[in-house]
Amino acid sequence: MQKRILVVNPNSSQHITDALSASVQPHRDGGIAVDCVTLAEGPPGISSHTHKAFVVGPMQALVLREAPDTAAYVIACFGDPGLMAVREVTDRPVFGMGEASFYTAMALADRFGVISTTEGSRPRLARYVRELGLADRFAGSVAAGIPVVELANDPTATLDRLTEAGEALKALGAQVVITGCAGMAAYRQALSARLGMPVVEPAHAAVGLAAGVLRSHSG
Amino acid sequence: MQKRILVVNPNSSQHITDALSASVQPHRDGGIAVDCVTLAEGPPGISSHTHKAFVVGPMQALVLREAPDTAAYVIACFGDPGLMAVREVTDRPVFGMGEASFYTAMALADRFGVISTTEGSRPRLARYVRELGLADRFAGSVAAGIPVVELANDPTATLDRLTEAGEALKALGAQVVITGCAGMAAYRQALSARLGMPVVEPAHAAVGLAAGVLRSHSG
Amino acid sequence: MQKRILVVNPNSSQHITDALSASVQPHRDGGIAVDCVTLAEGPPGISSHTHKAFVVGPMQALVLREAPDTAAYVIACFGDPGLMAVREVTDRPVFGMGEASFYTAMALADRFGVISTTEGSRPRLARYVRELGLADRFAGSVAAGIPVVELANDPTATLDRLTEAGEALKALGAQVVITGCAGMAAYRQALSARLGMPVVEPAHAAVGLAAGVLRSHSG
Amino acid sequence: MQKRILVVNPNSSQHITDALSASVQPHRDGGIAVDCVTLAEGPPGISSHTHKAFVVGPMQALVLREAPDTAAYVIACFGDPGLMAVREVTDRPVFGMGEASFYTAMALADRFGVISTTEGSRPRLARYVRELGLADRFAGSVAAGIPVVELANDPTATLDRLTEAGEALKALGAQVVITGCAGMAAYRQALSARLGMPVVEPAHAAVGLAAGVLRSHSG
Amino acid sequence: MQKRILVVNPNSSQHITDALSASVQPHRDGGIAVDCVTLAEGPPGISSHTHKAFVVGPMQALVLREAPDTAAYVIACFGDPGLMAVREVTDRPVFGMGEASFYTAMALADRFGVISTTEGSRPRLARYVRELGLADRFAGSVAAGIPVVELANDPTATLDRLTEAGEALKALGAQVVITGCAGMAAYRQALSARLGMPVVEPAHAAVGLAAGVLRSHSG
Amino acid sequence: MQKRILVVNPNSSQHITDALSASVQPHRDGGIAVDCVTLAEGPPGISSHTHKAFVVGPMQALVLREAPDTAAYVIACFGDPGLMAVREVTDRPVFGMGEASFYTAMALADRFGVISTTEGSRPRLARYVRELGLADRFAGSVAAGIPVVELANDPTATLDRLTEAGEALKALGAQVVITGCAGMAAYRQALSARLGMPVVEPAHAAVGLAAGVLRSHSG
Repeated sequence: MQKRILVVNPNSSQHITDALSASVQPHRDGGIAVDCVTLAEGPPGISSHTHKAFVVGPMQALVLREAPDTAAYVIACFGDPGLMAVREVTDRPVFGMGEASFYTAMALADRFGVISTTEGSRPRLARYVRELGLADRFAGSVAAGIPVVELANDPTATLDRLTEAGEALKALGAQVVITGCAGMAAYRQALSARLGMPVVEPAHAAVGLAAGVLRSHSG
Repeated sequence: MQKRILVVNPNSSQHITDALSASVQPHRDGGIAVDCVTLAEGPPGISSHTHKAFVVGPMQALVLREAPDTAAYVIACFGDPGLMAVREVTDRPVFGMGEASFYTAMALADRFGVISTTEGSRPRLARYVRELGLADRFAGSVAAGIPVVELANDPTATLDRLTEAGEALKALGAQVVITGCAGMAAYRQALSARLGMPVVEPAHAAVGLAAGVLRSHSG
Repeated sequence: MQKRILVVNPNSSQHITDALSASVQPHRDGGIAVDCVTLAEGPPGISSHTHKAFVVGPMQALVLREAPDTAAYVIACFGDPGLMAVREVTDRPVFGMGEASFYTAMALADRFGVISTTEGSRPRLARYVRELGLADRFAGSVAAGIPVVELANDPTATLDRLTEAGEALKALGAQVVITGCAGMAAYRQALSARLGMPVVEPAHAAVGLAAGVLRSHSG
Repeated sequence: MQKRILVVNPNSSQHITDALSASVQPHRDGGIAVDCVTLAEGPPGISSHTHKAFVVGPMQALVLREAPDTAAYVIACFGDPGLMAVREVTDRPVFGMGEASFYTAMALADRFGVISTTEGSRPRLARYVRELGLADRFAGSVAAGIPVVELANDPTATLDRLTEAGEALKALGAQVVITGCAGMAAYRQALSARLGMPVVEPAHAAVGLAAGVLRSHSG
Repeated sequence: MQKRILVVNPNSSQHITDALSASVQPHRDGGIAVDCVTLAEGPPGISSHTHKAFVVGPMQALVLREAPDTAAYVIACFGDPGLMAVREVTDRPVFGMGEASFYTAMALADRFGVISTTEGSRPRLARYVRELGLADRFAGSVAAGIPVVELANDPTATLDRLTEAGEALKALGAQVVITGCAGMAAYRQALSARLGMPVVEPAHAAVGLAAGVLRSHSG
Repeated sequence: MQKRILVVNPNSSQHITDALSASVQPHRDGGIAVDCVTLAEGPPGISSHTHKAFVVGPMQALVLREAPDTAAYVIACFGDPGLMAVREVTDRPVFGMGEASFYTAMALADRFGVISTTEGSRPRLARYVRELGLADRFAGSVAAGIPVVELANDPTATLDRLTEAGEALKALGAQVVITGCAGMAAYRQALSARLGMPVVEPAHAAVGLAAGVLRSHSG
């Protein structure tokens, strides 16, 4: 029987959930099912501590409703909103997309860098890395500065900007790069080829880690 | 087509490789094959810096021979011998069993503890945790002090000793425990139930992480 | 004209707010007013990440309502729930009682220890201290293990238990002790005399720091 | 009855003491008196380890003379000369202006930066921040490079230079700035408005913290 | 021509200087002379921040007087009093006995422990180790608790006590031990044999390091 | 009778061993002999983890052969290959040239910087510094970018490049500089004069430290 990983997109944007679900297709393999749901109560995007606190209650309710069929949860937002709180309402493992991307990157190389969406998210990221005790492995972050419309419409320009950000991280000592935004997922492979170093996509990292733990515990 | 993970047991004990291969069965799922090989040139067990250096050359040779059919490598020894050097001879990802167990444990809880086989390995472990920059998440290690013969012959006594070690780690602040020896793999589930906290088995952690990365990169 | 510090008790227990208000009386001095309010929507006590997330929304609403008359806010809970999020809705300074007690203790001696209410809060505290980057100054925490009823009814036994906890912290290297619970406030002076080292009470620390900043900015 | 904070200017420049005394006026409120004295034996300014050691003896003598009327001491020099030694001759709390400014800044934002007077003081500062275990919160320092005569005579140019230094600190990740020199005190408010972030003035920080502790202990 | 290392005993006890001079005899070899002088102005022993500040001025005067014939200085007190300040008055290298013992120990094994003379010196030591950024290599300290009279009169009991302290340090993870007091110098070899690990004597460490630097610079 | 330090050059380049032997001449003084040998089995140069592992076995064999006449060993390669493993086959002290240069530099000033030979060695160095727990004292590294042929043939250009690298390190906060390559040894004194700060040459540092320890233990 398959074990289900439930991926919760804590923002209310269904098209992001749809893209996420398509993206993680390779992890639906043999004994693992991966379902992606949108948190209807979430804001369109999560970009503050306020948003992060706001989604906790609805996520907990969703997790409790889905519990009978779920073996593990993934919170699909780079800031890991509610990770600690959701763990308090379930005994199944709960994985944060941000945290999982850090660990996966660290398994691939010594120092990781992050391409952030906005300048404003960078201090929150730095503090979170410190909270996790990972500052010694963190080369830093660079904001890509890509307007959302461009991300969708102009792949060439987008890849150029991501490459610039990746090169800036390399100069800071990064040996592996994390794309800190769902919209960058499609560029993972091309960006890795351009930079000549591994690129980690957080949703893949979290689902992969969750599936690995589920398989490990089924033996 | 399946992608193969090659698990290299750097010691020459074929029965350990066999047990390993049986143990990681749940990870052979859909698109992932997992083959386990013994390093014929290795010592019977790896318990020193000398051993760790000694196996590097033979492992590199093995990795180069196996390259055509291999998508990722796992070095199946808790001390991660030759991890950095093997990465120098292949562009495929190489995972260390020790390192992978730390990251997997950190994805499950804040502070990890390790049940070590021997007193003598504890300072090497502490230094390695510092080398990886993970000391802030490391609750400490406790040597199980189980004679090899007992590990095999007296499951009840063994589980009791592992539980004692786990409780000692809990008192040091550990919220997740890693079993630092292949021979403890069979006790993972029972130990977790006794301690009331997750227990991570390193071979599973490394193969799970490797499979996750391979699936992530096949999208 | 007086500047008002608004102390928000994020749990719904009015008697705690009343005790708090009486306790911080010495800070109502000259140009500073200190008002203490209860968060009606809060739980009776805050003892989990779930509680911490839950109170954020109501606290933000309260802060916005009270803004016209308020020069600074204090969140009167040792876990500093919502501190970062509340700062996002106001440009007035917001002080966390936990954080303020750490800084005040560090201004009095090199290493601080914390008398925690419960065993269960200790890992959250350790993680928070790491998030704040203060682990090098943190001697550790000890749970007082005092039933609430005893705290109120048997001052002699309570002081004895607090003294034991303080002595245990001293053995861990603490040179100053923080009482991690509002109910211990009344014992500050006696405990300090018994231990022969300074004892910091978090509500006092936060209000004192807030008042200092307000006076500093009025020059 | 009022409690007196004695602020000791360890350099012999009376005009600095006078400016200091005028500056901290807002803290003379209700139950708190603040007296500022000049250390007659001090050098005109303190800019070396040699100076720092030299003033210890005279400061201790002064502290012992003033003990009968004094509830707390502030050492009014950013390098906190003699802080540990003065604590050895009195059981009243002794606050260092540098240390107090760090803690106050940390209560306002995650990372602090310092505008230093001279290039030469920056390595001493970095080492002191490490001694205090605060390096994870320290964004760095920038020397303002303002000749003393200009500080006094050309407020516009001075504010411009301080703003440049503050912007450089912001680029290093600072979210709050400390003015590392008494002569910059008058620019605190204007600089904060220009930078759009809080600015902490060390003498205010130390006197504010001292007053808060005294009020806390009088309950 | 010989190069002279001047060892300054900053306390006024001539018999300690004499013992020191006899002890470092093996370093008087070929091109290196080692002279030991007593700081007449020093206190009989140095056991506080007050003492440490007090000796700075007289040490600087002594260093300036002795400059014409001196190639390097050693400050022969485990607390390294005045090290930074003495460096400000000479361009010759100045070595602290405490610091030198840490580095020498770290060149022999991963983690060092210190046998302290008194309980009271342990917090100063911990802070100094942090100031030097060496906390990750520091296993801790244990006070030997040997009355001075016994140190001189009962070698058997003294060695027993030192061995107990060393074993306690070993249990804390120490792999090399530093004797933190001149009076323990005579027991170095016997203690090392008993503990089965290297023991570093600070005066030897500092003179040895100084001689090595002088020879390195004479090439 | 003289005590012999055996310096093992783990690469097979005899001319480097010869230069090394000439360079450390000042340490052959009185009771200390210094012999330098080439590891015939080593690669011409050591520039990877692969090389580092490869030389361990031959070095151990050499050490065992030379044991009867040897009081201490120095591994004369900046990456300290095999340091931990060689210690496992001898009870004599074994010093790594890299490690020794860090400690010697730290005894001379607060923050050290390293002039690396190549860009590629810089991440290995950063990781090694973290493994040793010295990151708080490490200002960083700068690659000199000097082709080997130029090192030999154009002293003026070489000194200019080293000076540039040293100035870059000074800008990063370095107060002492380590020359990370045997070929730079001849420039130590001139570079120090140009930069106005101490320059540490690793082979000298290691031999000096070894000699100091031998003399310390002969008392």
